Amino acid sequence: MFLKNYWYCAALPEEITKNPLRRIICNLPLVFYRDTNGNPVALEDRCSHRQAPLSSGTIRDDNIQCSYHGFVFNGDGKCIYIPHQKNIPRRAHIISYPIKEKWGFVWIWNGDPKLADQNKIPSLPWTKSPKRSPVFLYYYVRANHQLVADNLLDISHADYLHSDTLGSKSGIMDGPKPDKVEFRTWTKGNEIHSFRKLTNVEVASYPKKWGKFINNVNRTNIQMWEAPNTVHVHLEFENKENKILINHDHIMTPETETTTHYFMDFTRDFGLDGTKYPTDEDIYKEQYSVITGDDLPMIEAQQSNIDLCRDAIDVPVKADKLISDVHRHLAKLYKLQDIGVPSYIAGKN
Amino acid sequence: MFLKNYWYCAALPEEITKNPLRRIICNLPLVFYRDTNGNPVALEDRCSHRQAPLSSGTIRDDNIQCSYHGFVFNGDGKCIYIPHQKNIPRRAHIISYPIKEKWGFVWIWNGDPKLADQNKIPSLPWTKSPKRSPVFLYYYVRANHQLVADNLLDISHADYLHSDTLGSKSGIMDGPKPDKVEFRTWTKGNEIHSFRKLTNVEVASYPKKWGKFINNVNRTNIQMWEAPNTVHVHLEFENKENKILINHDHIMTPETETTTHYFMDFTRDFGLDGTKYPTDEDIYKEQYSVITGDDLPMIEAQQSNIDLCRDAIDVPVKADKLISDVHRHLAKLYKLQDIGVPSYIAGKN
Amino acid sequence: MFLKNYWYCAALPEEITKNPLRRIICNLPLVFYRDTNGNPVALEDRCSHRQAPLSSGTIRDDNIQCSYHGFVFNGDGKCIYIPHQKNIPRRAHIISYPIKEKWGFVWIWNGDPKLADQNKIPSLPWTKSPKRSPVFLYYYVRANHQLVADNLLDISHADYLHSDTLGSKSGIMDGPKPDKVEFRTWTKGNEIHSFRKLTNVEVASYPKKWGKFINNVNRTNIQMWEAPNTVHVHLEFENKENKILINHDHIMTPETETTTHYFMDFTRDFGLDGTKYPTDEDIYKEQYSVITGDDLPMIEAQQSNIDLCRDAIDVPVKADKLISDVHRHLAKLYKLQDIGVPSYIAGKN
Repeated sequence: MFLKNYWYCAALPEEITKNPLRRIICNLPLVFYRDTNGNPVALEDRCSHRQAPLSSGTIRDDNIQCSYHGFVFNGDGKCIYIPHQKNIPRRAHIISYPIKEKWGFVWIWNGDPKLADQNKIPSLPWTKSPKRSPVFLYYYVRANHQLVADNLLDISHADYLHSDTLGSKSGIMDGPKPDKVEFRTWTKGNEIHSFRKLTNVEVASYPKKWGKFINNVNRTNIQMWEAPNTVHVHLEFENKENKILINHDHIMTPETETTTHYFMDFTRDFGLDGTKYPTDEDIYKEQYSVITGDDLPMIEAQQSNIDLCRDAIDVPVKADKLISDVHRHLAKLYKLQDIGVPSYIAGKN
Repeated sequence: MFLKNYWYCAALPEEITKNPLRRIICNLPLVFYRDTNGNPVALEDRCSHRQAPLSSGTIRDDNIQCSYHGFVFNGDGKCIYIPHQKNIPRRAHIISYPIKEKWGFVWIWNGDPKLADQNKIPSLPWTKSPKRSPVFLYYYVRANHQLVADNLLDISHADYLHSDTLGSKSGIMDGPKPDKVEFRTWTKGNEIHSFRKLTNVEVASYPKKWGKFINNVNRTNIQMWEAPNTVHVHLEFENKENKILINHDHIMTPETETTTHYFMDFTRDFGLDGTKYPTDEDIYKEQYSVITGDDLPMIEAQQSNIDLCRDAIDVPVKADKLISDVHRHLAKLYKLQDIGVPSYIAGKN
Repeated sequence: MFLKNYWYCAALPEEITKNPLRRIICNLPLVFYRDTNGNPVALEDRCSHRQAPLSSGTIRDDNIQCSYHGFVFNGDGKCIYIPHQKNIPRRAHIISYPIKEKWGFVWIWNGDPKLADQNKIPSLPWTKSPKRSPVFLYYYVRANHQLVADNLLDISHADYLHSDTLGSKSGIMDGPKPDKVEFRTWTKGNEIHSFRKLTNVEVASYPKKWGKFINNVNRTNIQMWEAPNTVHVHLEFENKENKILINHDHIMTPETETTTHYFMDFTRDFGLDGTKYPTDEDIYKEQYSVITGDDLPMIEAQQSNIDLCRDAIDVPVKADKLISDVHRHLAKLYKLQDIGVPSYIAGKN
């Protein structure tokens, strides 16, 4: 149902503490905590004994003790203590997931642990660049993870849904049009890329404030998608007055088939002094309110319509070329793993 | 699952405005709005592009623009604008439903548009009679539409459920009995009729006040059912002191298999001066409180029991002859349309 | 799905009054009330006519009248009145369930009424002993009834989940250990027994207060399970200072597959004067808060994990011998009644 042998983004680092955190990822109940060295641990959130959630238990040094009968498991998932009993059956051990803190997020490996090479974690270098200031966000979405990704893969929605905040009014029927719209996509191995440029386009309130623009700008979006479901966005606003650069990454982790953990970083090359607008907090608030106010209600409403009309098929237009490319690629990956291709992907090609 | 090629009551006229209204009818998500001429429009509430609900979009003159990427559809469902793209693919058009305002309600045609003859809309002439004052109501019911209809088709419930308000105490085991109970049903083409008269029966508080009755009355109910699910009721209360006439119509529109849009008009030949009891507002409040207080909790509780006991079969008694006739007729209509006969209809004959 | 031909605990006596009570037991909607002699009555909570719940009706002497159309049923389920109709069809009668008030609870027989011998009701003699003071409790649990039973059948959870209140800290990894742990189980006909004794064990706050213990105690649990799902517990705390005896019984009645009516009595041979701690009210509050605070959240969390991981199989340890014996016995009973063995029982052997 979900692709195996990938790193999935599991949490923001500050979510994982000495107190156990329960989080369902790809339908698996997981518990996260930090050991005495501060390293994150990810285990099945089910005591092998009687399915009790370990997350309601207690961290004891590097281990976690189930609050029901007191079984203790170490960070490798090994059961190391059963009350009133010396021998520990093999079947009492639980699954420990490879886990790695990198690029400002915590990632777990869902698949064969021998293949868990941390170099396979999606690269988010701008989050560590000295020339950028990064902001990290988390959203919970009541919709399938691919609907969330598709929202980003068709960036033309910025010209309508976000016409007042992030995008432009160029999607409005009688709105001001750019001089030129360029859009192309290409595939490079497992990466699906796109380039989109609007020349001489009106600019909405946030980028206007960020770049102190007065006149129209050229807006360039360079995007890259990679499996299982990360969208990297490079964004430029430029005219004679100024040029600002933004790189943001969106990482969609399935909770279940119809709910998603949505992680995001937003890095910028402006407003870096931390005292004047936009500060990190300004950016956090803007991104949080635009996405929870505009995108998520829309995506969740799509999910409602899809639930009601199971046989609905999208009608792709030119702006959807990136979506179509990604869906086609995903269909291949699903088939390679002998997973049935979900209808929301199959139906769109 | 639902009968095709019928007019279904969709809304009260004042519900349809310049702001789009989402309403699910027969499992179809629909959006309603008024164009610049004030004419109602009914479209699929799903943008062909990505299943977004158009109802969260914006009315632009006679058209509706999707709030996600900005696609525009006219009142015929034709896609007339796709941002950044000139050619509009055929598949981008969506379904427009024939819609008609008549008899104080708004109706949509669920079926072949070529057959959408507005003369097939159930006739509710009393709502337009100069001798009557009509009141219109809408109820949302968490139960199957046929359970709502059956409530009206077995009017003997007025003698018990409504013994204090609309009916009589003649259903109570040791309650005062009428001199005579007449009840017969007959079929005329596609109309199923019934006649029921209680002679010299005690009268409950509302008709007592309406007709200023002191003594017992004769109570006559003449009803007619027609497909898909309208119940017309002609009601007389009469004795030597006075005679009052009421015609009310009940129109049950399925939202889903287990939820119903319930529309009602109530017309009367008394209290027409608008200042003394009963005014239209008095009637509205009485009908609203009796139906939401007595009928709907009962119908929703039936639905709960049916959900729990899927194989439950009703035991029809004499008072159910109209229900049985209607169910038998409906079973024929379902078969004609190659729709499986729902168990709540099949099981009762 | 549920075992037939057993007495199921239905209610506490004070729950059944002159006002009808609806309660679902083994997926059956039932209505309970008391007749003019104060005897409890249990009927299907569905009018034969149209599936209306009789529980929203009215008690009339020994009978109940449906609030929809006024049908009347006596305590035997016989329909004795249909408004406006003299003959009463046979099919109008509904099911009456054998019902018996005994041992401080009300029991109904789910099965062939001819076999409803009240001597088959689980024997709870301590509730009637002059040497004991009994307290009765009811809990509603959002989990399968067997999960609730298993909680009691593996009493070792008292050494961890209840380490501060009812049990001991001997389950904690580095907690103080008893000198000896004895545990054995045996089967006697349809009864599954266990004996468990912890010698010289630390004692938690409640039994410490109950017995005014200063030093460690010997703690002895003698338990017996019988079908369909009653657990009898005999509990002793003893050292040189004092000895206290408790007998408590736990009766799990399925509401549905995933919800349970959980009844309990708690009898003690101490604090009997009713003015000093512990009074009946003290015991009620302690038991209510421990079970709703510790056990039920754990059991409901197990159910959530099981719902998520349908193929999860428990790993039984020594302390689970009683659970395993009971599940094995239950599997036999299910097979005898040609009921599919539920996976939560089959999977554990």
